Amino acid sequence: MTDQDPYLLTPGPLTTSTTVKQAMLRDWGSWDGNFNAMTADICQRLLAVAGGEDSHVCVPMQGSGTFAVEATLGTVIPPGSRTLVLMNGAYGQRIGKILTTLGRPFLAIDKGDYHPPRGDEVAAALTENPDIDQVVVVHCETSSGILNPIDEIAEVCRQAGKRLIIDSMSAFGALPVNVAELPCAALVSSANKCFEGVPGFGFAIIERDLLAASAGQCHSLSLDLYEQWQYLQKTGQWRYTPPTHVVAAFQQAMKEHQAEGGVAGRLARYTRNRDRLVAGMRELGFQTLLVDQWLSPIITTFLSPDSPAFEFGRFYDAIKARGFVIYPGKLTVADSFRIGCIGQLHDEQIDAVIAAIAEVCQELGLTLPVPAPAEAPDNLQSA
Amino acid sequence: MTDQDPYLLTPGPLTTSTTVKQAMLRDWGSWDGNFNAMTADICQRLLAVAGGEDSHVCVPMQGSGTFAVEATLGTVIPPGSRTLVLMNGAYGQRIGKILTTLGRPFLAIDKGDYHPPRGDEVAAALTENPDIDQVVVVHCETSSGILNPIDEIAEVCRQAGKRLIIDSMSAFGALPVNVAELPCAALVSSANKCFEGVPGFGFAIIERDLLAASAGQCHSLSLDLYEQWQYLQKTGQWRYTPPTHVVAAFQQAMKEHQAEGGVAGRLARYTRNRDRLVAGMRELGFQTLLVDQWLSPIITTFLSPDSPAFEFGRFYDAIKARGFVIYPGKLTVADSFRIGCIGQLHDEQIDAVIAAIAEVCQELGLTLPVPAPAEAPDNLQSA
Repeated sequence: MTDQDPYLLTPGPLTTSTTVKQAMLRDWGSWDGNFNAMTADICQRLLAVAGGEDSHVCVPMQGSGTFAVEATLGTVIPPGSRTLVLMNGAYGQRIGKILTTLGRPFLAIDKGDYHPPRGDEVAAALTENPDIDQVVVVHCETSSGILNPIDEIAEVCRQAGKRLIIDSMSAFGALPVNVAELPCAALVSSANKCFEGVPGFGFAIIERDLLAASAGQCHSLSLDLYEQWQYLQKTGQWRYTPPTHVVAAFQQAMKEHQAEGGVAGRLARYTRNRDRLVAGMRELGFQTLLVDQWLSPIITTFLSPDSPAFEFGRFYDAIKARGFVIYPGKLTVADSFRIGCIGQLHDEQIDAVIAAIAEVCQELGLTLPVPAPAEAPDNLQSA
Repeated sequence: MTDQDPYLLTPGPLTTSTTVKQAMLRDWGSWDGNFNAMTADICQRLLAVAGGEDSHVCVPMQGSGTFAVEATLGTVIPPGSRTLVLMNGAYGQRIGKILTTLGRPFLAIDKGDYHPPRGDEVAAALTENPDIDQVVVVHCETSSGILNPIDEIAEVCRQAGKRLIIDSMSAFGALPVNVAELPCAALVSSANKCFEGVPGFGFAIIERDLLAASAGQCHSLSLDLYEQWQYLQKTGQWRYTPPTHVVAAFQQAMKEHQAEGGVAGRLARYTRNRDRLVAGMRELGFQTLLVDQWLSPIITTFLSPDSPAFEFGRFYDAIKARGFVIYPGKLTVADSFRIGCIGQLHDEQIDAVIAAIAEVCQELGLTLPVPAPAEAPDNLQSA
């Protein structure tokens, strides 16, 4: 490791600003009015970013993003109600696992590792299965880095009169979403993604009427979002001890998000990061898994070079020694690795990571350009 | 508020050291080896403090302490198995609520607001209900500040061959516990109590054989401690994103705990804090709810002065304006408030809070000593 902490080019936890971390240098009483005002402020800000001020409420939930997803599904989906889960990676599959654990019935459309679920196939599934009440989709599936077409899917749900639940963990804050216009019954995200806070809680933005009708449905005491909401309304406090320092950091992160121009400002920087990264990597001879249409400005999957000199652990360590932490791949179909664009990363860091990777390739004796993978489905970037 | 942040005289989140908070000034990759080493280190340290190195494992869980309690009960108690819950305050009642939500059968011995559950009544209940498999007790019930007699209860469980589960949220780290000797099947606690970390995760110290036999029992995906343990063993990583900064702060807190002399050193300081606090408050004319035998070195309940000039909100605000956050009461039987002894509090702060309360009494025109409460059960401190 260099003297400086390495930059995290991962889907989160990510590199946050010094000022966000410094907001954690105070202790807050979780019962105290000053802390309650902070909670109310971040919920109000999140609701505004989501465009849900008139129709939705924002409820935070302790734990990782998965806790917030489980809390949302467990709270708002009635025990007997059937769900359509759109899968194209680890996070869609995790939603299926949650519903299985909760004993709630669901149907899955599984597109494999990197194909987007499309509107027409969702429409067909809803027509064939009229007993489905809600559809769950992952906004940006970081397994491959694909940006799923949620507008298209929301429109199909609207037409069919089905509720849409979006796991927007790695997208909300950088990709525009308007929960009222889509419409979207519940959107779930987390503190340590595109808002650039530190990890420790997630949150759900839920239609007020839907949440109000969700009393007593949750399978868990701790993860009951209805009860969390009721308690917040009654007392201004989280129902059980909140991660106070993480909340303070998040309030600072929300202010910095706004100062950067909100979602539009952040999207512009992340898009620039991605374009610069992809161009630089292609110049070195690396290939992206996906064609440009499906590349998210969040994280990009690169195919591992088809060279006996490439071993991910050595590649990772050599890049880390130069001050950058990259991310392993998560595909079953092809050897790959991932590089994130989110967090406190700017031109300087993107250029530096490209330079570091160029050095590492030379050091490890990697010969590029890599050959194309054996099979090349339509959305793969290859010959 | 004074320029300095107020000291938190609460049962946590509490006032932590500057160095603990400064440990949060770095970003960690949750997949990275340096972070994994930190997780392994804190688990090893916690296991050593609990005396469970040969028999138990330590598994952390994201969220508040209640998340860790629910995770433990949901993971290690088989669905059909019956539990005896010892209640004497809000936290014992919460255990009952968790089991109700999970649909797991239990019997409660409810001692009300401040009476300790005793060995003989536990023994009698176990004799009358041979189908009970485990007993759950709260170590320090902060509702009243009572220190429950866990040695006595553990001995009864041992004789009857029942598993003992201890919610030691507010006690572990300051009160000696040896899980192997008691014996105790599972002990649950949290980062932001007597180890003086910041809030964001809890942990359970569980008999290895019991946890190994707990696959597939949990009602929740996120809260499954068996799966968390398996994943930690396999990868060194938490199963879902950990609160990385909170974990870093906790490692620093564990080092400071050790430097203070471990459990013995911390117990000595907290006991000194409590004795100084109780003596000073009694000198002002305040009365403790409990007789000395049951006073914990964690938090003490004082009866509200029986004066029309006393209104808790004004009392709280006036003390807060002098730099100290105290805690409201939680009793149904008597008006009260609570003052904690834990966190970065030393003679200087205890003396200063007594001086502040003396000033506030004068400012608000409170006449002390207060009269004794109407009824005076045996463990109440009164006439």
